[in-house]
Amino acid sequence: MLSRHLIDLDDLSLSDLHSILQLAHEIRERPGDYFGACQNKILATLFYEPSTRTQMSFQTAMLRLGGQTIGFDNPLNSSVAKGENLKDTIKIVSGYADIIAVRNPQEGFAKAASLYSNCPIINAGDGGHLHPTQTLTDLTTLMEVKGDLHGLTIGMCGDLKNGRTVHSLIKTMCHFRSKFVLISTPELTVPQYIKDIMDASGCPYTELTTLEEAMPLLDVLYMTRIQRERFSSPEEYERQKNVYVLDKRKMALGRKELKVLHPLPRVDEIEPEVDDDRRAIYFDQAIYGMYARMSLIIHMLDEKNHYPVQFGKSYRAKCQNPRCVTQQERYLPSTFTDCGDMLICDYCDGRTLI
Amino acid sequence: MLSRHLIDLDDLSLSDLHSILQLAHEIRERPGDYFGACQNKILATLFYEPSTRTQMSFQTAMLRLGGQTIGFDNPLNSSVAKGENLKDTIKIVSGYADIIAVRNPQEGFAKAASLYSNCPIINAGDGGHLHPTQTLTDLTTLMEVKGDLHGLTIGMCGDLKNGRTVHSLIKTMCHFRSKFVLISTPELTVPQYIKDIMDASGCPYTELTTLEEAMPLLDVLYMTRIQRERFSSPEEYERQKNVYVLDKRKMALGRKELKVLHPLPRVDEIEPEVDDDRRAIYFDQAIYGMYARMSLIIHMLDEKNHYPVQFGKSYRAKCQNPRCVTQQERYLPSTFTDCGDMLICDYCDGRTLI
Amino acid sequence: MLSRHLIDLDDLSLSDLHSILQLAHEIRERPGDYFGACQNKILATLFYEPSTRTQMSFQTAMLRLGGQTIGFDNPLNSSVAKGENLKDTIKIVSGYADIIAVRNPQEGFAKAASLYSNCPIINAGDGGHLHPTQTLTDLTTLMEVKGDLHGLTIGMCGDLKNGRTVHSLIKTMCHFRSKFVLISTPELTVPQYIKDIMDASGCPYTELTTLEEAMPLLDVLYMTRIQRERFSSPEEYERQKNVYVLDKRKMALGRKELKVLHPLPRVDEIEPEVDDDRRAIYFDQAIYGMYARMSLIIHMLDEKNHYPVQFGKSYRAKCQNPRCVTQQERYLPSTFTDCGDMLICDYCDGRTLI
Repeated sequence: MLSRHLIDLDDLSLSDLHSILQLAHEIRERPGDYFGACQNKILATLFYEPSTRTQMSFQTAMLRLGGQTIGFDNPLNSSVAKGENLKDTIKIVSGYADIIAVRNPQEGFAKAASLYSNCPIINAGDGGHLHPTQTLTDLTTLMEVKGDLHGLTIGMCGDLKNGRTVHSLIKTMCHFRSKFVLISTPELTVPQYIKDIMDASGCPYTELTTLEEAMPLLDVLYMTRIQRERFSSPEEYERQKNVYVLDKRKMALGRKELKVLHPLPRVDEIEPEVDDDRRAIYFDQAIYGMYARMSLIIHMLDEKNHYPVQFGKSYRAKCQNPRCVTQQERYLPSTFTDCGDMLICDYCDGRTLI
Repeated sequence: MLSRHLIDLDDLSLSDLHSILQLAHEIRERPGDYFGACQNKILATLFYEPSTRTQMSFQTAMLRLGGQTIGFDNPLNSSVAKGENLKDTIKIVSGYADIIAVRNPQEGFAKAASLYSNCPIINAGDGGHLHPTQTLTDLTTLMEVKGDLHGLTIGMCGDLKNGRTVHSLIKTMCHFRSKFVLISTPELTVPQYIKDIMDASGCPYTELTTLEEAMPLLDVLYMTRIQRERFSSPEEYERQKNVYVLDKRKMALGRKELKVLHPLPRVDEIEPEVDDDRRAIYFDQAIYGMYARMSLIIHMLDEKNHYPVQFGKSYRAKCQNPRCVTQQERYLPSTFTDCGDMLICDYCDGRTLI
Repeated sequence: MLSRHLIDLDDLSLSDLHSILQLAHEIRERPGDYFGACQNKILATLFYEPSTRTQMSFQTAMLRLGGQTIGFDNPLNSSVAKGENLKDTIKIVSGYADIIAVRNPQEGFAKAASLYSNCPIINAGDGGHLHPTQTLTDLTTLMEVKGDLHGLTIGMCGDLKNGRTVHSLIKTMCHFRSKFVLISTPELTVPQYIKDIMDASGCPYTELTTLEEAMPLLDVLYMTRIQRERFSSPEEYERQKNVYVLDKRKMALGRKELKVLHPLPRVDEIEPEVDDDRRAIYFDQAIYGMYARMSLIIHMLDEKNHYPVQFGKSYRAKCQNPRCVTQQERYLPSTFTDCGDMLICDYCDGRTLI
């Protein structure tokens, strides 16, 4: 059973997740059977920051199900420029549309939207916080190319500290007896709470500092970008930058069954020469993402599948995260989950000392 | 019978108006019956200034009738940036589309467009001049929530001097034995010509300066924004600003059957705490607007309903209104309605002394 | 038979061309028969520079065939702003869409796109280089209004040196025993290679410097714009500017069966007073363009019609044209057609001395 809204991939049970991946597979096998599945339905894509790729993926998914789309991709063209708040926009658009995909740089924006929406909300990215349909895309890709999610050895390379897609993928794959190989500079390895999750689920992990060491070990290599400014100094960047770039030479060290994923867009971290290697499947991954979104939309429009999003308790506190949606949208009810000496903001997951 | 184009709500007879409101009601009751009513038809939304709300409302209306949409919402992205005139744009787009909704800051733009269009034009706002589909939205809302337009006591609050939606709603409601309560600062009350219309139609009106006095009298409260710069001085603004803000305390003075409308977007003139009051129906109003537009599109595409827009006579005069469409589009025929010692511009209704 | 992609009108054989014009005619006669011809198909319009007219024409064409559209018209809103290259964008969008129309100011962009696309590419303009659907529009217009392309006397007026639509139309009409009348300042007449083509095909041409001399001779007048900066000096511009402006007086010198075309948008080169002359068909021309694009889309989606685009040989050379797509997209294979002491770039047709 799905929650009414998809804000965080953790909202899904494993059984929900299997159901979505299974339907994505069936749609890919027989797309013609699903043309018309969303006839007379409208998807609104409210993109407060541009992300052509993600927006097109949602739009294509809806159109290939026989539905229609409305929306915007430019806040300067929207009523937002006239100072309209989240609540009013969502109240009204959820009266026009049957389902909404929302992207906004404020953390917790999609969850706040779910409070006021008359239709299901899909979180299409809320700043650096959550981006569940990217993880669904990754999982669909693994399922389609590996046939089974269990027991894979997965290398994660790049900025593992700040990469939200990396964290989300690790958390989910911990349900499937994965082994993880974490490839990054020591400064950019995964946060402690992710290590705790791997430990708790009994999934072993190794930390390495070069791709060369990792390549022979992997069933899957998940590449991400390291931004120049993440390195400790310009000198360190110059010294390290090529260590985390995938090229033909490093690919030669990988197994025959290796699959290379990347959430795209890439910049320099994968050389174009790798594109012709059959193990490079990042372009296919984008297409699997369309099937994942088709499946998700069908699930969310099925009224049987609707469950409320969970909120904690009201507190007189104020979230301290400067990127939290509550900073701008002052009327939002102040709710937190109590966690000992901390309050965890229900919107952005920011932690505030009591 | 409708005119071919909807430029001004005055183009509609009362019988036209009833027919549109009636169909809006039927569509809302049985939307499935009307899916397909505009199949194979295309609506172009030409928005020379951004208005996401209005544009989405038109797009959704057309999509829910089984039609399709094209258009733009950003003049910088359009051929207009290359210097194309109104005539050429309309000539061509009216060859692509079956019906056009046009919004432009120049007063009289939509009427000028009607001269060159091969398909019906809907005025979706021409500067501060006319915005007939907002009034249709308001009327549909009143009809749906009150069941009858006759004999209502309607409060209008805010900037009644400059608010085009206020003027248009008063003019139309004068046909329905309304009583009006005008709530504003003395500087921002309705213009004399609107008072003349109320007098001529025998509709009584009262002018009040506070919401508190008005609340107990009203069947309907139509809230609008007062822009800070409309007050006579910053000191006056500080003193008055809260008088015209609707909050829980003022709502408590209202009747049980009161309905609060607002054309949206709001800024500060209605406190979010009012949203949860069942008498606040401004979010529903936006949805009624979609049904109003669905009904309007069906009527306008029905070829039986097409009548020409009225124009006056050619004069060698030039309209003096700096915001008139004739200032920029020099090739437009110069036509006016003779009104004693005045010429009234057929595009913008601006008055020029002879 | 069509090539898989339409990059250059020269990719089409005369038989392809006839087939497209014939189908455009049939669609115009019985549009209802073709609604549904592209059901379940998606056209992506990737417009890296704004061209509302052309984009709307493509979108309308697809929608009137029962298909759907996705796309963008503003590179600042796209992933391109994050530095994504042509290859990645095309790889992914060609997985979402069934056919792509691409416009980009870089010369050779569409041809480069064809290297990576999983679906047919239509060149909707690559800088000053090629714009084949404009020429298809012109040909469809001539066919529809004249009934036959053979033996026409065609006047071309304006900037004949730099006008890509002029060159493309002359090249194609050389197959149909045309006579050409070239009307321009001596500095702005057609390049020598176009004269060579007319000579080689046995099509006579006359060069004139005034519209007055030309008017009585013509079956067709193809007007284009002369940009102010193309004249040899500001004085020359002032002296000449009206010579190439079409007005009522010059129209009076034309034959009864004359047809006046213009690719639009126009600026000052045709007076609005000419629009009411029945021989002025430039607004109809835009609508014929929609039928031409409908026909083209149907042909290109027909899998029987797919042939590869031709490329020359790999060289270690680099194209010298600063507007060539290879300047920015460095990974593109460097291929040229050897032409004696020259290499002709396969993307932009730029010439490089060996």
